[in-house]
Amino acid sequence: MKKSALQIARAAYQPKLPVTLTGSVKAIEGEPTQSVADQEEIQKLFPNTYGLPELRFEKNPNPIVGKPVNVGVILSGGQAPGGHNVICGLFDGIKKINKDSRLYGFLMGPGGLVDHDYKELTADIIDEYRNTGGFDIIGSGRTKLEKQEQFDKGLEILKQLGISALVIIGGDDSNTNAAVLAEYYKKIGAGVQVIGCPKTIDGDLKNEVVEASFGFDTATKVYSELIGNIQRDCFSAKKYWHFIKLMGRSASHIALECALQTQPNVCIISEEVEAKNQTLQDVVDYIANIVAKRAAQGNNFGTVLIPEGLIEFIPAMKNLIAELNDLLAKTPDFAAKTPAEQRQFVLGNLSQNSATVYASLPEGVARQLTLDRDPHGNVQVSLIETEKLLSEMVGNRLNEMKAEGKYVGKFSPLHHFFGYEGRCAAPSNFDADYCYALGYNAACLINAGVTGYISSLRNLTKPSVQWLAGGIPISMMFNMERRHGEMKPVIQKALVRLDGTPFLRFAAKRDDWALSTAYVFPGPIQYFGPAEVCDQPTLTLQYEHLDK
Amino acid sequence: MKKSALQIARAAYQPKLPVTLTGSVKAIEGEPTQSVADQEEIQKLFPNTYGLPELRFEKNPNPIVGKPVNVGVILSGGQAPGGHNVICGLFDGIKKINKDSRLYGFLMGPGGLVDHDYKELTADIIDEYRNTGGFDIIGSGRTKLEKQEQFDKGLEILKQLGISALVIIGGDDSNTNAAVLAEYYKKIGAGVQVIGCPKTIDGDLKNEVVEASFGFDTATKVYSELIGNIQRDCFSAKKYWHFIKLMGRSASHIALECALQTQPNVCIISEEVEAKNQTLQDVVDYIANIVAKRAAQGNNFGTVLIPEGLIEFIPAMKNLIAELNDLLAKTPDFAAKTPAEQRQFVLGNLSQNSATVYASLPEGVARQLTLDRDPHGNVQVSLIETEKLLSEMVGNRLNEMKAEGKYVGKFSPLHHFFGYEGRCAAPSNFDADYCYALGYNAACLINAGVTGYISSLRNLTKPSVQWLAGGIPISMMFNMERRHGEMKPVIQKALVRLDGTPFLRFAAKRDDWALSTAYVFPGPIQYFGPAEVCDQPTLTLQYEHLDK
Repeated sequence: MKKSALQIARAAYQPKLPVTLTGSVKAIEGEPTQSVADQEEIQKLFPNTYGLPELRFEKNPNPIVGKPVNVGVILSGGQAPGGHNVICGLFDGIKKINKDSRLYGFLMGPGGLVDHDYKELTADIIDEYRNTGGFDIIGSGRTKLEKQEQFDKGLEILKQLGISALVIIGGDDSNTNAAVLAEYYKKIGAGVQVIGCPKTIDGDLKNEVVEASFGFDTATKVYSELIGNIQRDCFSAKKYWHFIKLMGRSASHIALECALQTQPNVCIISEEVEAKNQTLQDVVDYIANIVAKRAAQGNNFGTVLIPEGLIEFIPAMKNLIAELNDLLAKTPDFAAKTPAEQRQFVLGNLSQNSATVYASLPEGVARQLTLDRDPHGNVQVSLIETEKLLSEMVGNRLNEMKAEGKYVGKFSPLHHFFGYEGRCAAPSNFDADYCYALGYNAACLINAGVTGYISSLRNLTKPSVQWLAGGIPISMMFNMERRHGEMKPVIQKALVRLDGTPFLRFAAKRDDWALSTAYVFPGPIQYFGPAEVCDQPTLTLQYEHLDK
Repeated sequence: MKKSALQIARAAYQPKLPVTLTGSVKAIEGEPTQSVADQEEIQKLFPNTYGLPELRFEKNPNPIVGKPVNVGVILSGGQAPGGHNVICGLFDGIKKINKDSRLYGFLMGPGGLVDHDYKELTADIIDEYRNTGGFDIIGSGRTKLEKQEQFDKGLEILKQLGISALVIIGGDDSNTNAAVLAEYYKKIGAGVQVIGCPKTIDGDLKNEVVEASFGFDTATKVYSELIGNIQRDCFSAKKYWHFIKLMGRSASHIALECALQTQPNVCIISEEVEAKNQTLQDVVDYIANIVAKRAAQGNNFGTVLIPEGLIEFIPAMKNLIAELNDLLAKTPDFAAKTPAEQRQFVLGNLSQNSATVYASLPEGVARQLTLDRDPHGNVQVSLIETEKLLSEMVGNRLNEMKAEGKYVGKFSPLHHFFGYEGRCAAPSNFDADYCYALGYNAACLINAGVTGYISSLRNLTKPSVQWLAGGIPISMMFNMERRHGEMKPVIQKALVRLDGTPFLRFAAKRDDWALSTAYVFPGPIQYFGPAEVCDQPTLTLQYEHLDK
């Protein structure tokens, strides 16, 4: 493929490794660990990999040349900036251990392991992908590694290729599965270590021991660039309200970080909506009131950030969707009814609360909830254009307020959804360094002979040379949760903490931002400029460190 | 407002002026000019400002200190990156002539002149806006300066502030009006010079004497960043077709430039569709065939770029829209009919050709064409989601092809529209330099005592220090065109030339790009890196220079 000028220049960037990883490395064991909850159950499920110690890496004053090792690597789930650098760091790491080590990539996600689709990643291939965005070096996929037959099938190819360690780069589910796989391979004496790496732009894989998942830094910077540009346009033209939906189904970290970076007039945080048991109408009223107050100042423009998953955090909407899923599942002739009959039928068969919510929705959205269904018959929440839903309802509310004499102004909404624009951006310096170090560090964990660990770097608000490197037993992050009706050991998803500094800083400022127009314009990610422009971690990370 | 780290670092950037403008400047007159067409008529309409000579600036070996001058400035029409730098350059230019010169900005566009809304732009204000995006320093607006009463009203405030020169920063219409205003003020001996500056991200204000309008460079780089990111995602996930609509109603320069930068699988050029008299179905078939061919290779993913104005370039659609506007204007009871009656009525009252086109449209789009109407009763073409219209029709066509055994694959479309993301981005080095020089050069034109000129810099593919500075009589760019039923002198809009190198390069490559997946990932605009990354002009400009 033809390379852009930036790609060519950027290929020369050498990620800055933590000092401890720059020479020969030795592992220092900490105390045995416990899972964050449900210790007994989890210990029972992971008899061979529970309670392992945390590992910390230090420089080894007496370097030893390691044995060559064959390693497999998998990209799992949605793309995140920096994935290629994890693989490059891993490659360099195992080559450092022994130059005869080899790296194999399984293609198009975990399915590649099961289906024996792979390619060897040699130095010439690796060099094409340094500091680039995307997962296209080996592709990614959403097959879940959960079943013993998958594990056994995968082991065949691992044995065939002489692979003794597998690195799985993924989110909370993929790392959960990595731990299950590690336990299984340990149990059967397969002789294959399994190491995880924390990936997801959503920022919801983090906890006491994992400070951040990679990709969040770059993706939020791309979205903030775009939001900033739109805000500058909005402030210049002074005639539109921009409703901007941001990726992130299960948590609002992305919306929150972008709000901290750009200071919009409104940002909705799903976790707060849920905690306050707000209705959709509450959210609409909140926005409409800000629109009206700004209009009273003569400002008929503004910006609203909306997390993609909002609908699913609104308790009343969640109930409505659950009832609709049940109702339509047992009504096979629903599609044969006319639209008017369908509406009548739905309203007549929902609980009173849900019927009221349903009746309050704009007709197009209400209809969408009964039409677009996934193969399991469920509402496809991701297809709901929440940004349009909200702006339409805000418009309706403003019309009522106008009639009541509470609003004088003009409301012209525009809509945006940003997600795919950021998932494969070339990694920021932070993500380039973080990912490369995660991969290199994974090689050190392999060399240390452990399994069921996640590659860990801490102290991330400091320059990368000062980061602390080591490994965390994945089982340490587990609790038991109900998934598809069954209790399972899983890594707890990190939601936005309403008592955490990132949210509190936002909450303290938002009333001011709503009315005073305090937009910030971050501009595009810079790779070559001064450190204060190129090397700052996210505000979320900086503020979270204040909580430590 | 709080400044981002990039804004602070970028404020220190010193745009690189052409060498001829760095000291004292003298104007060299060329031969008298002629308008590009309809010379007699235009000369009659511009007796006082027609036939003026082109001006070329040279270094003045015998510098003279000029008299202080009070200057007014107006931002007209849609935002474009670099507008602030035009104003900064103008400020520095008139201060260089005499430190007692003063600059006044009229607020929220040409309306500010008529309504006497202005503010003085002093050094401390100007310094806040150097190298920033947006038009928020004084705002912009779409009021057209066309009527004598507006000119007279404006003159009152100009006289009151002692302003002897007015700089209008705008697109083709605004510069046309600047020339009309210049002629009028000259005719009545108002003692006010009028100077234009070529602005528009659309890139359709350019000709033999104006090489480029400002903003096009930055905006297309922002869109190309996003398209590149989406393409990397598309190529990694290998499961979506991304339909990406790009701003630019009247010409496809933006789509073409982005295609040259990113090499998508499909890019539609409106001018070609019109020249070949293609139908909407022709466009759909073209895309569907590429989808099918890629699917046959196992590639169920791709990217399609669509210019915003496509619909209006399709002859059959243009006819349909015109007929609908007429039909509905004389059918006041249309809104009272049921949707089914409306459809019946429309189909029964259109010409046969238009009825066939109407019947071929997805029902939602057909309905939208009769529903969303502007205050004049016309279809609001800009609200048509062409990207969704096309993907839906492509999906339908693929279903037919599947039934005919001509397509085996999976078609999952996603949609994007990029416009507001790029209009107020911080200007690229090119636009920062170009805009600053345009403004500084406008000051030199004022000092030269001329009126009815547009600020001109040529040789733009060379480093900015080598640019040629001067002035072009705006009337030189005029021809007569029918506007709202009347023949008017206007600057000809520059459409994509199908015999120009930019289009020919694209046309020569597109079949390869369609099937081979030749994506390029330009990445974000860089301000601090190596020149080949930071200082390249657009490919359109580079290729157009090959035609000279």
